[in-house]
Amino acid sequence: MARVLVDFQPVGRRVEVDAGQTILSAIQQLGLSLGAGGLTAPCGGRGLCGRCRVRIASGEVGEVNPAERRFLTPAQLEKGYRLACQATVIGPVKVEIPPESMLGVQKLQVEGLDIAVTPEPPVKRYNLPLSKTTIENPLPLWQQVTGELEATYGLDRPGVDFGLAREWKPMATEGECVVTVRGPEVINIYTGRLAPPPVGLAVDLGTTKVAGFLINLETGATLAADGIMNPQITYGEDVMARLGYALEGEEEYRRIQEVEIEGLNRLAATLAAKAGVATTDIEEAVIVGNTAMHHLLLHLPVEQLARAPYVPALTTPVEIKARNLGLNLSPGAFVYLQPVIAGFVGGDHVAMILGSRIDEARKVTLGLDIGTNTEIVLSYGGKMLSCSCASGPAFEGAHIAQGMRAVTGAIAAVRLSDDGRDVFWESIGGVPPLGICGSGILDAVAELYRTGVLNASGRLDLNHPRVRRPAGGGPPEFLLVPAAETGIDGDLVVTQKDINEIQLAKAAIATGTLLLLEAAGLTVKDLEEVVVAGAFGTHLKLESAITIGMFPNLPLTAFRQVGNAAGTGARLALLSLTERKRGEAIARQVGYLELMTRPSFHEVYVKSLLLP
Amino acid sequence: MARVLVDFQPVGRRVEVDAGQTILSAIQQLGLSLGAGGLTAPCGGRGLCGRCRVRIASGEVGEVNPAERRFLTPAQLEKGYRLACQATVIGPVKVEIPPESMLGVQKLQVEGLDIAVTPEPPVKRYNLPLSKTTIENPLPLWQQVTGELEATYGLDRPGVDFGLAREWKPMATEGECVVTVRGPEVINIYTGRLAPPPVGLAVDLGTTKVAGFLINLETGATLAADGIMNPQITYGEDVMARLGYALEGEEEYRRIQEVEIEGLNRLAATLAAKAGVATTDIEEAVIVGNTAMHHLLLHLPVEQLARAPYVPALTTPVEIKARNLGLNLSPGAFVYLQPVIAGFVGGDHVAMILGSRIDEARKVTLGLDIGTNTEIVLSYGGKMLSCSCASGPAFEGAHIAQGMRAVTGAIAAVRLSDDGRDVFWESIGGVPPLGICGSGILDAVAELYRTGVLNASGRLDLNHPRVRRPAGGGPPEFLLVPAAETGIDGDLVVTQKDINEIQLAKAAIATGTLLLLEAAGLTVKDLEEVVVAGAFGTHLKLESAITIGMFPNLPLTAFRQVGNAAGTGARLALLSLTERKRGEAIARQVGYLELMTRPSFHEVYVKSLLLP
Repeated sequence: MARVLVDFQPVGRRVEVDAGQTILSAIQQLGLSLGAGGLTAPCGGRGLCGRCRVRIASGEVGEVNPAERRFLTPAQLEKGYRLACQATVIGPVKVEIPPESMLGVQKLQVEGLDIAVTPEPPVKRYNLPLSKTTIENPLPLWQQVTGELEATYGLDRPGVDFGLAREWKPMATEGECVVTVRGPEVINIYTGRLAPPPVGLAVDLGTTKVAGFLINLETGATLAADGIMNPQITYGEDVMARLGYALEGEEEYRRIQEVEIEGLNRLAATLAAKAGVATTDIEEAVIVGNTAMHHLLLHLPVEQLARAPYVPALTTPVEIKARNLGLNLSPGAFVYLQPVIAGFVGGDHVAMILGSRIDEARKVTLGLDIGTNTEIVLSYGGKMLSCSCASGPAFEGAHIAQGMRAVTGAIAAVRLSDDGRDVFWESIGGVPPLGICGSGILDAVAELYRTGVLNASGRLDLNHPRVRRPAGGGPPEFLLVPAAETGIDGDLVVTQKDINEIQLAKAAIATGTLLLLEAAGLTVKDLEEVVVAGAFGTHLKLESAITIGMFPNLPLTAFRQVGNAAGTGARLALLSLTERKRGEAIARQVGYLELMTRPSFHEVYVKSLLLP
Repeated sequence: MARVLVDFQPVGRRVEVDAGQTILSAIQQLGLSLGAGGLTAPCGGRGLCGRCRVRIASGEVGEVNPAERRFLTPAQLEKGYRLACQATVIGPVKVEIPPESMLGVQKLQVEGLDIAVTPEPPVKRYNLPLSKTTIENPLPLWQQVTGELEATYGLDRPGVDFGLAREWKPMATEGECVVTVRGPEVINIYTGRLAPPPVGLAVDLGTTKVAGFLINLETGATLAADGIMNPQITYGEDVMARLGYALEGEEEYRRIQEVEIEGLNRLAATLAAKAGVATTDIEEAVIVGNTAMHHLLLHLPVEQLARAPYVPALTTPVEIKARNLGLNLSPGAFVYLQPVIAGFVGGDHVAMILGSRIDEARKVTLGLDIGTNTEIVLSYGGKMLSCSCASGPAFEGAHIAQGMRAVTGAIAAVRLSDDGRDVFWESIGGVPPLGICGSGILDAVAELYRTGVLNASGRLDLNHPRVRRPAGGGPPEFLLVPAAETGIDGDLVVTQKDINEIQLAKAAIATGTLLLLEAAGLTVKDLEEVVVAGAFGTHLKLESAITIGMFPNLPLTAFRQVGNAAGTGARLALLSLTERKRGEAIARQVGYLELMTRPSFHEVYVKSLLLP
């Protein structure tokens, strides 16, 4: 019987199963948990509960059966929804596990990864009776609340956040209230209306994109998720430009910090509206970001970060009242910033390790989060060593002649016929292409090399029929899509300079990988697992990355594309104090390797520029 | 041999000794501690060390002897300075113990009271080595600091205040540093210059006056003390007027809060300059104030405080970063606000009890802090019960026809010949009098009653030669000082209305006392000790207060005039976390008696209006 590859998204796990097996059995082979009951669906996979809903993103599966018709609407079936326990795989298939299928009750599934975590949030709720404050019963609200917390729940002399006391009416009325306690103080209260569940905000504060998640802190459910462009982008595309702007003067620094905070407030408002709660219901926030984003948000000194020795001002975790940062959450809410490790290894890297469980890897594991700076961690024998590589913005479409972000109209995948004469491409949204995004240019370079249109030095073969000199002269280019098929007024091409940009980027990443291994006394042969995080890392074609030597040449099954692991880490740190401490332990445990100080840096880098 | 009364200031303790005994022996009889060595002077009272310096404020003492000439300059002798172990008492004497004579080394004397306290401040200092941050040694300052604190001193994952990290340069240079740690975080650092001792600020935030003390947190020494007028006075003389102003609108509230914070910043700057440190060296602050001052400073809701049921918004202790209140102290400094008890029983009352040790009184003790509102506590059988009386501003000179504050030119003491025809008065500064202050009007009313010029209802005897109707008609008045002797263009008089104001004030205080006793099931006969706190309470003549029935009729030795006990309590809470917790325990332990709800209130009040 044929073996077929089943690829699960967004968890990024792959498994080979016999054709004809159900998707649920593939899930079970991977040890993924699914459905409200955990590993097994509540009905035991008999098609009786309809809870193991998944979506077939691509590939061939068996026909829809009556059990599935019972639980899925025609519109859902149209969109590819199936029951995992009923649908069988025929050919290689890509399966999406929707968030609602991943929620547990006790042990929770956190979207984006197969991690079960018991909620253990920093906030706790209490129901308390109240009596009316009068001159005969001169007990104001907070005195009643703290008194009840002490008498009924045995709390030790609880206090009240003075910001909450500022904003809340101090007279009690007859009835009940729900209060939220964090550490030694009451930080929120609900009277007179039904209290929403305790809600927390997790933010992955990226240089380009800011991803936010609103989480039910009791169940771990993701109530809303959304992303915005980082509004600081007006002041510079990359971290160096932003730091440079902040260093122009106090007013500039203030401005770049303020737009960030405004952006976070907008994101929180959008998420709250989606989830049907108020921003003032958000009682805790966790923010993870690279060191520059972290420092700019906190208005920490950045000169030593923008220039040698490129060190952070502060590496310890920061926990402050959200209001003291200008964030409009619940009056007493705290915001926790994951600690950073080094100038270019930030809290997002810590969160990535936390969110992908690399810290507990028993195999020799490499973890990469590819961006303008690519952070890499090597986990081996209970140790972790990280570095940062200046991989540049090529994979975000910048510095590429016709590059663009991975949005509608971008060519996201490219394949060539073996002679390189025919080009097969896919554009996002299926529209006539407007440009090429990271995964598209990566594919293009890999395919050009595979088909011999490029040599090992990265030079285009001038004798190839699709290679030409541009009209105005200059270095050669490869005709990817002729003008007639594009959505722009002209051809889409891959230039010699584009190829060199990709070489620079992949050399940076390969150098980081090799020097980490060297510092650990290991070689590529010792690597057992590679975790690839981030949006680009999840969408890229692994084969292409291996072909050009960006990733080590290992079997595809050794790779794990984990999506936004930093976002997952942020949600874990939000949901559980144990996870938060684990993140802090990671930050303290990870060694930092400054690549520039390695004697072999130059030699390795020059070698890595070549295609393998 | 004759017995003479020795009265110690500013501690407010009195003792009777045989004429001819030394002042030191009187001190020892009281159990007061004096001099660097504690109870006994270092030399054992043999006149060999010169440390037991005191000042004779008034009264007759023996002649200066050779031992005293050795340790005191002629200028000091001129001012009344003597050695307590050498000077003998002849008649009744008032002795001032200067601050420098009250400092201990291990157990500390806190100025203003005979309280020995072991410093146990919330901040702790550490000396650490630093190495230069470079690309080869990429450890920025805070990473070195926290690493050293962990490695050398065993601190558990210390953090760094992010406000400090904001303001301080993050690169380390070769050398040493001194850091201040508070709880889990580093809050201050000194590099490159000698660190001053750790300094704290204690503030007694009164409605009229704001008293500040700068304290060495290691030794307990008072480095500077000063007072300013409360700048909020522009917005209302008393708390009700201020609350009313704050309630006019958000802008008004913001303004009245801001002037207070500006005032505190000015006071801190003045004190720092006096002590030769910077305001940024102040690493901790404690503020005690009545409930209105407390709420206005924190910008808490005050409507329910200004109107029935007159309750506070928040009674729990508040501890926040000083910067979050706009106070310009050390970047990471905290400010602690002593908890309040009720709408008119504030943190200053808690501090008064703490500073006068009424909470550990074994006798049935009454404690009074006289002001526009007079707070009274009754301590009996291990319990404490407090109330607040609206005694009005008469003792601050307001509502008195020719009243004024106790400043230069005010008549502060009055005595009449037995027939009431001759008036003997003293003015502050010895200048021709401009008006009459609280202790002066109290004396005047008491003397008028003693000499029969007033009857028990408080009516002036119209047949007395100094009693007259004013030129324009109206109620009678008593001629205190004829125009020729005053510094103003006219006579100084005590009006019938002035007398009635004093009756109202004393009736309020007496009613509070009687209702507290009643609620405790006690009578005046059960009272064993009366503690009188505050500036007016310390300067008033006890005999006068007893004569008019403001104070219970007990022997003078049962009274203890303790000065600014609230300020002492603030300093204790600043210097020692044990004292701070003790203050919190007091706030929780003290019961609050709302006088208006007592059935006998009206009857007792009306009776108390009469002179006894």
